[in-house]
Amino acid sequence: MTAEPTTTPSASAAPADPGGEASRQHTLRERNLRLVARAVYDAAAAAGTRPDTVPPSRADVAAATGLTRATVSTLVDRLVAARLVAELPPAPAQRAGRPAVPLVPASRTVVGLGLEVNVDYLGVRVLDLAGEVVAEHVERGAFHDADPARTLGRLGALAADAVADVEAAGMRVAGARLALPGLVDARTGELEVAPNLGWSSLDPVPLLGLRDLPVRVANEAKLAALAELAGDVPDSFLHVSGDVGIGAAIVVDRALFLAERGWNGEVGHVVVDPAGPRCTCGARGCLEQYAGKEAVLRAAGLPADAPLADLLARLDDEDGGGTARAAVERAARALGSALADFVNLTGVSTIVLGGVYTELLPWLAPDVHAGLTERVLAAPFAAPDVRAARGGKFAALTGGAREVLRDVVADPAPWG
Amino acid sequence: MTAEPTTTPSASAAPADPGGEASRQHTLRERNLRLVARAVYDAAAAAGTRPDTVPPSRADVAAATGLTRATVSTLVDRLVAARLVAELPPAPAQRAGRPAVPLVPASRTVVGLGLEVNVDYLGVRVLDLAGEVVAEHVERGAFHDADPARTLGRLGALAADAVADVEAAGMRVAGARLALPGLVDARTGELEVAPNLGWSSLDPVPLLGLRDLPVRVANEAKLAALAELAGDVPDSFLHVSGDVGIGAAIVVDRALFLAERGWNGEVGHVVVDPAGPRCTCGARGCLEQYAGKEAVLRAAGLPADAPLADLLARLDDEDGGGTARAAVERAARALGSALADFVNLTGVSTIVLGGVYTELLPWLAPDVHAGLTERVLAAPFAAPDVRAARGGKFAALTGGAREVLRDVVADPAPWG
Repeated sequence: MTAEPTTTPSASAAPADPGGEASRQHTLRERNLRLVARAVYDAAAAAGTRPDTVPPSRADVAAATGLTRATVSTLVDRLVAARLVAELPPAPAQRAGRPAVPLVPASRTVVGLGLEVNVDYLGVRVLDLAGEVVAEHVERGAFHDADPARTLGRLGALAADAVADVEAAGMRVAGARLALPGLVDARTGELEVAPNLGWSSLDPVPLLGLRDLPVRVANEAKLAALAELAGDVPDSFLHVSGDVGIGAAIVVDRALFLAERGWNGEVGHVVVDPAGPRCTCGARGCLEQYAGKEAVLRAAGLPADAPLADLLARLDDEDGGGTARAAVERAARALGSALADFVNLTGVSTIVLGGVYTELLPWLAPDVHAGLTERVLAAPFAAPDVRAARGGKFAALTGGAREVLRDVVADPAPWG
Repeated sequence: MTAEPTTTPSASAAPADPGGEASRQHTLRERNLRLVARAVYDAAAAAGTRPDTVPPSRADVAAATGLTRATVSTLVDRLVAARLVAELPPAPAQRAGRPAVPLVPASRTVVGLGLEVNVDYLGVRVLDLAGEVVAEHVERGAFHDADPARTLGRLGALAADAVADVEAAGMRVAGARLALPGLVDARTGELEVAPNLGWSSLDPVPLLGLRDLPVRVANEAKLAALAELAGDVPDSFLHVSGDVGIGAAIVVDRALFLAERGWNGEVGHVVVDPAGPRCTCGARGCLEQYAGKEAVLRAAGLPADAPLADLLARLDDEDGGGTARAAVERAARALGSALADFVNLTGVSTIVLGGVYTELLPWLAPDVHAGLTERVLAAPFAAPDVRAARGGKFAALTGGAREVLRDVVADPAPWG
């Protein structure tokens, strides 16, 4: 044999060294560059949730990384020259010496693209390193059973327009993530099946026709969850998005949990009652049949395709809203049971509710909390926390663009 | 502020550099030492499942790590001198030059201790780096509501005896893991509650009285799962141990999944039927009420404390075993439903069944498989795999000792 030690992951050891360059100096310099970039970007992320903080100086970065002031200064200069980090006007010096220069993520220099095909829209969103949207285009449509080549071709054209615009403004495009509402293999990026689009066994990237842009594919619920990281969330949470189906993503230590092929978070098909109604998946009593959007609307006496506003209006109707409130309570009890299973199985105790659940949260909360309190074994020691999603509209576009930029910060050397 | 960037974990970036010594040469040497140690140990682990492989030579390690032959040779010499790696007699040379010296984990040099208090035994097991048991002592008893100080004191005395024995034989003890059947905080090692021992809010380590030995505490089901890694398992799996309660541990990429405080794998309290029998946890219809050992024995018409052999005898009784077989089928259907929830939620598709389930597997398998096939959404693309545990008796002792030794290999420098 030839030993294959580095292909067998080991739990606590240092990460493998794929290039086999562990002992070479330039790798060490690149690693330090990554440490410095991360110090600036992590501080910016923390400042996003604590407005009283100020950006770090070179001295702060040296203290945080353990690198010497001279090394940090050289590496920061390199990141500034590469336009990945920007310098703000110096703050007044607190001690003798030169005033400290605050370091922040650069604006409108390197950008990432979020792309999405969903059942009723195509979307493109361009984010810069500072987290600002610098371009966006969302086109409404009906893409159930739409032709993949035509649909992805149209999205590719929208993306190419956006790229041309931002490049004309002097920005560099790092890459794109394509969000699809289906089973995407996290290892290969292939789409196995997207039932609501009627697509299956597809390699979607070539159909975009974006030859010069590196594009990777991911499940839309997974990318939508990452949009929450821009706000004040714990490092680990379950993001559940309620619609006709119920999508979810598990974030652990600020990264997507993607064991094996990343096919997880199927909260909608957790067993609520083995004697319950037949689900579209073929099994009985799945959560979707109680808490999916259509199931709730029907139980509330509304058409399955009624807008959410109609349901909200009925819930507010003190006299006539009894049926609607009963429907939402039934959904909430089922949701509490399924989410308790999730917390018991994974130990992740924060639940972020998105999609239609965000607006329904005031009505859902009491029964969801009751179910979690009754069923989560560790609840006396770590009470589960249920909160509304804050990722905003088309969150998968934001999450996708963030993923692209995260890779830039994680390995800034090629941008220098 | 002072920036705190390294305290905010980032997903894809390199690991933080806690000592802040990224740029110092001795850290680089230690990192290379880790790479070399891991190459030898990973190859040994792979060889455990592929008997036709031979141990790597220095040249193989150089190829696997990307380090130079000279660097590898120096580092291997250091590991041999530290008695962490041993050299086998040279294999005949396949080409011109000196014959290659096969490198293997050292036997009977550095050892790790697994300790355990469980409901009906205290245990100590000592493993060497080659994975062999070099000492073991299991003492039967009844520890429900036992005094913690007395019980842990007794276990500590057994451990001290084992340490004295192996040290007298020239071995060095790296540390110990204490397995307890309860909720252990993965961050602090404190025991919140162990219902079957009647213990709560306890710091167990001082009560062992092992002053010079570093001891860490973990849940016994978690450590038992790690014993599977000695055999031929995929990198990610769920290990379920059936007894009166149903414990479980999630292994992802060969390490325990420990989000937040590590309180996960409570498969026994997944909802099987909301109208089902009341569980000891207070909720209704938990898996434990269908597939826990006592529930199965009772449904089979046996006393709740009957030995498993009695149930197995009835299952084999072609004429009179109908009630027993119906009880096990009911358990298997419930288990299939709960495990399907697990696979749908986590994407981990291999289930290893331990405890009483190992021997019951032939009777459980058809209905467990049917439940998984019916309910797991990704089953057509990645069929779930159910298999018997192979960690053997008192697997938590093996898993605990392995954890200690894993830390030695992950950071071998202090042993040199």
